[in-house]
Amino acid sequence: MCELMAMSAKLPTDISFSFTGFVERGGNTGPHKDGFGICFYDGKGVREFKDHNPSCRSPIAQFLQNYPIKSTNVISHIRQANVGDISLENTHPFHREMCGRIWTFAHNGQMAITDIPEPRHYKPVGETDSEKLFCWLLGELRSRCQNNAPMKLQAELLEKQCNYINQFGVSNILMSDGESLFVFCSTKLSWITRRAPFGKAHLTDADITIDFSAVTTEDDIVTVIATQPLTDNEIWQAMVPGESRIFELGECVRESYGPKIEHKKAEK
Amino acid sequence: MCELMAMSAKLPTDISFSFTGFVERGGNTGPHKDGFGICFYDGKGVREFKDHNPSCRSPIAQFLQNYPIKSTNVISHIRQANVGDISLENTHPFHREMCGRIWTFAHNGQMAITDIPEPRHYKPVGETDSEKLFCWLLGELRSRCQNNAPMKLQAELLEKQCNYINQFGVSNILMSDGESLFVFCSTKLSWITRRAPFGKAHLTDADITIDFSAVTTEDDIVTVIATQPLTDNEIWQAMVPGESRIFELGECVRESYGPKIEHKKAEK
Repeated sequence: MCELMAMSAKLPTDISFSFTGFVERGGNTGPHKDGFGICFYDGKGVREFKDHNPSCRSPIAQFLQNYPIKSTNVISHIRQANVGDISLENTHPFHREMCGRIWTFAHNGQMAITDIPEPRHYKPVGETDSEKLFCWLLGELRSRCQNNAPMKLQAELLEKQCNYINQFGVSNILMSDGESLFVFCSTKLSWITRRAPFGKAHLTDADITIDFSAVTTEDDIVTVIATQPLTDNEIWQAMVPGESRIFELGECVRESYGPKIEHKKAEK
Repeated sequence: MCELMAMSAKLPTDISFSFTGFVERGGNTGPHKDGFGICFYDGKGVREFKDHNPSCRSPIAQFLQNYPIKSTNVISHIRQANVGDISLENTHPFHREMCGRIWTFAHNGQMAITDIPEPRHYKPVGETDSEKLFCWLLGELRSRCQNNAPMKLQAELLEKQCNYINQFGVSNILMSDGESLFVFCSTKLSWITRRAPFGKAHLTDADITIDFSAVTTEDDIVTVIATQPLTDNEIWQAMVPGESRIFELGECVRESYGPKIEHKKAEK
């Protein structure tokens, strides 16, 4: 399996605590040692950091743990390769510009690359099924894209596409246009929304505790999404197969449920 | 003025020495304190680092000086804003995917944004004249793009476009598709090719000397391009207005000369 992590926040928030636990799974507490990537939206721009080295030993990941970058939308991925070499072009998140916005995408799944329809407008740079899927999804949205139409106005089509592709294999998805964060659960994803009164949280993958009440204001609302819960003393919401959600400014603003599909293929 | 820097190398080479001098111009020896960006190609993938803080004080720039990343194609930019706010989306280099390659672009210039034709296929995310110009240039190439056609096969059109746009204002350009590095001089750019036998070089902007013979092999060939020479004890080739060059694997593989245009507008 690859693993996914994302954040949607009302106010610019750093994700150092969650990221510190997450990167341990990239070669230490988890086997996802074939690279990592993280994108932080800042206004309409994106800061991106990628490495094809294991995240638990990457100097870039280490730098990020000590240099908190504040953002309202973050997508991250640690990779265990099955389709495509261990290389930078095969490292998630992927991104493309559509309608004057930068769209980012990370994926945990496995399907025959030939089952994914040929993308319009966008072309994969690397060899992964994930990037081809992203190019196809975005190309389909683009063909119906109004001038600068944000993701939330295209949610119905996006959900339909994800449920369609889900029949071909495991396909957990994170996608953002910088304003909204779209999440599709094919097999496994959990989320938690933290708001005042804030409490303490303890990481599952490292013996680190944070007291959120010391680093937040009453106005903060922060949702974190991950393949598996990142803390062991809080209640995370497990998504069900076929479930989609859109988060904006830390809040869930849309949910929908497609058909639950039993996948025979192993996850990567 | 903004300032530009790029590298083309036969073998993966780190640019830490040149970068150390270059970032000093971002708020210390030079006034370009409105952000910086640098892209390193690695295979078909790109590592990108951007900050809207002054490069001479940026923790990200500091990290890069101590973490040498090897690459055969690098593009970098330090910004002094005139069109568009100081923000991440207005920070060069810009990039877009075309024909399954990532194309990157950095620009030093000034022109009325309305003089740049409306781009096809690509849309700016920020407000700079530079990003609009990139979107237009790439859209024009794309409309003639053969399947996965690399830049070198489109050099003639690219040169023609750059000379066309040059009539509207200052427009020094760096552009790469990961294989070739295209350079257009509107007013000011210099380059140097280093090869065996390697010697010593001393930075103009910091009192640092490197002995390249200690860190290279006989096979290394490295070209560095910059708005102004980065070293004060070597002979750099000054380009003339209207001159274009393409570098591949450290060598200049094409040069051409368009009309020399006198620009009345001040550079940014």
